[in-house]
Amino acid sequence: MKILGILLVTTCLVTTTITLPAQTKKQAPLMIEEQGSFAVGGSVITAPGVYDPVKRGVDGQTFHGDHAYVFYQIPVKARKLPLVFWHGIGQFSKTWETTPDGREGFQNIFLRRQFSVYLMDQPRRGNAGRSTVEATIKPVPDEQSWFGTFRVGIWPNYFPGVQFSKDSATLNQYFRSMTPSLGAIDPTVVTDATAALAGKIGDLVLVTHSHSGGFGWITAMKNTHIRAIASYEPGSGFPFPAGEAPAPIASSAGPLEPTVVAKEEFLKLTKIPIIIYYGDNIPTQLDPNNPGADGWRARLAMAKLWADVVNKHGGDVTVVHLPEIGVKGNTHFPFSDLNNIEIADLLSKWLKSKGLDK
Amino acid sequence: MKILGILLVTTCLVTTTITLPAQTKKQAPLMIEEQGSFAVGGSVITAPGVYDPVKRGVDGQTFHGDHAYVFYQIPVKARKLPLVFWHGIGQFSKTWETTPDGREGFQNIFLRRQFSVYLMDQPRRGNAGRSTVEATIKPVPDEQSWFGTFRVGIWPNYFPGVQFSKDSATLNQYFRSMTPSLGAIDPTVVTDATAALAGKIGDLVLVTHSHSGGFGWITAMKNTHIRAIASYEPGSGFPFPAGEAPAPIASSAGPLEPTVVAKEEFLKLTKIPIIIYYGDNIPTQLDPNNPGADGWRARLAMAKLWADVVNKHGGDVTVVHLPEIGVKGNTHFPFSDLNNIEIADLLSKWLKSKGLDK
Repeated sequence: MKILGILLVTTCLVTTTITLPAQTKKQAPLMIEEQGSFAVGGSVITAPGVYDPVKRGVDGQTFHGDHAYVFYQIPVKARKLPLVFWHGIGQFSKTWETTPDGREGFQNIFLRRQFSVYLMDQPRRGNAGRSTVEATIKPVPDEQSWFGTFRVGIWPNYFPGVQFSKDSATLNQYFRSMTPSLGAIDPTVVTDATAALAGKIGDLVLVTHSHSGGFGWITAMKNTHIRAIASYEPGSGFPFPAGEAPAPIASSAGPLEPTVVAKEEFLKLTKIPIIIYYGDNIPTQLDPNNPGADGWRARLAMAKLWADVVNKHGGDVTVVHLPEIGVKGNTHFPFSDLNNIEIADLLSKWLKSKGLDK
Repeated sequence: MKILGILLVTTCLVTTTITLPAQTKKQAPLMIEEQGSFAVGGSVITAPGVYDPVKRGVDGQTFHGDHAYVFYQIPVKARKLPLVFWHGIGQFSKTWETTPDGREGFQNIFLRRQFSVYLMDQPRRGNAGRSTVEATIKPVPDEQSWFGTFRVGIWPNYFPGVQFSKDSATLNQYFRSMTPSLGAIDPTVVTDATAALAGKIGDLVLVTHSHSGGFGWITAMKNTHIRAIASYEPGSGFPFPAGEAPAPIASSAGPLEPTVVAKEEFLKLTKIPIIIYYGDNIPTQLDPNNPGADGWRARLAMAKLWADVVNKHGGDVTVVHLPEIGVKGNTHFPFSDLNNIEIADLLSKWLKSKGLDK
């Protein structure tokens, strides 16, 4: 161990061969018709002047940035509509891959169910790190706070019955599933790139999580190829038409404000089926001792108010609070929790009910 | 178009559906026994104090960083030794995925040849962006310089016969295949994480490119699970034993220095087969008008000197300068160039000759 400033640094070297989880080996092979990756959307900065290949200065050079990066897999006999998966705050495409405890995530689960799967890193995140804005990123210890906000428990305690493995190897992978933004998260930049993806691949079902929930609503207003949205624990950004927005909802994580948009834009969200899921261990009334979880009480309440307004205007929004249908113990990441097959089954059932799995 | 400071910004929105290249659709399906992702290696910063879940300050919190991120695929009836692919400077795992012009890269090509394929993002890059050091990253236009250094041509001209598609969509994808480092590239950090990967998965063949070439030699000294190395255009960091290092080699990109290591460490590299490839359009003598390409003249010359020293001590290093065996037009990225099947065939043949493809 070395002392780095006031901080303690521990080096983690794995020196023995660790076998991969047996569970994944029992599955049938994935039959992939096609797989690959690409950048989509973004912008180009061009420095004035003429490029000199000997001096190699900035004059006349370009910088391509702010694109999304996408890795896609199309299974044999794929269903018509692909699923496009969009991570949340502090996260990247890993959200949908192997779970922290080494089981299959939604990437593999839905490939096995014959959906084409597109995993996106939003602009300025993960493999799409080439940002057009300057960024300074500091390694600030913050993981016990995320443990609370993501409702695994209240550090150092896990919630009783939480759908999360309590071993240290799982927690190590969980914390390493985060990666910073290279610059501000710009709603226009991230939704433009996702709309460009829809323009490139055509009709799709968008699956969002947390922070991307709000961006998903905006993207669907920008591109009609987004035929449906499934959103896991969307955070801020529920868009109400002017005159129909509720009051802010207080929580010990701070007040949650509704977003107001033009009615013409809002009405676009009444044209597609939408399902929203929230997990367990959300306080039922303002909890000053647990701000990490309490913010989700406000978001769940806002989601229900929003669904009512969209549905009043002819929309088709369903809000599922998982414990209310008997699905207990889910964290902020239901799709990678221990019961993620059950969570996937719920999504499959909904997709079928809406004719989205042809 | 908007003016951003002195820089011109162009927004690139794809608004029509673009079909994916037909070429990839003609292939047989990929049969994947298992696929997934994980973080490996890295360190942990722990802030002193006790975490307070209400205040949520830095006290007592942790920060897991400096791991590598790995996405792996194991095909049905996989060969014994996996190929672990390590990107070069400014790059990430995309290096080995879909080529800039939309063809299959080494990821798919070697899966089809029944190798398990592990694609790594080195610590502080791409999906492994959670860095333990502070970083400030600026969007400096630099792409015409890379066009030269990567030997596509001398901007705005392509080299005659270069194995690179000359359309703008290809160049767009090519430039967007870069992503910045989040903090200094630390040889100890990146080689520790790669050695940890070898510790986790066991015996493997390491495939390096450019900047990771030098790191590959160090990693093989750290972990004997690295059973062979294939290196595409390794840059600096050729390790010579004390007393046997050559003089620096001048180039218009600056002098190339040899690296000196303890003889005991050096001798480890005599125990494994190594192949090194360089592409075309490398000057034959110091070219003051083309520093981008001239640096490769020095690196190729140093590689040959290094191979001689390793082989003198009983090693097995082969340096292939592709034009000398009739393979013309390759850039700094032979594995994604237009003739990448031919390049893959050369690697397959070498792996077979060394008994590495059982």
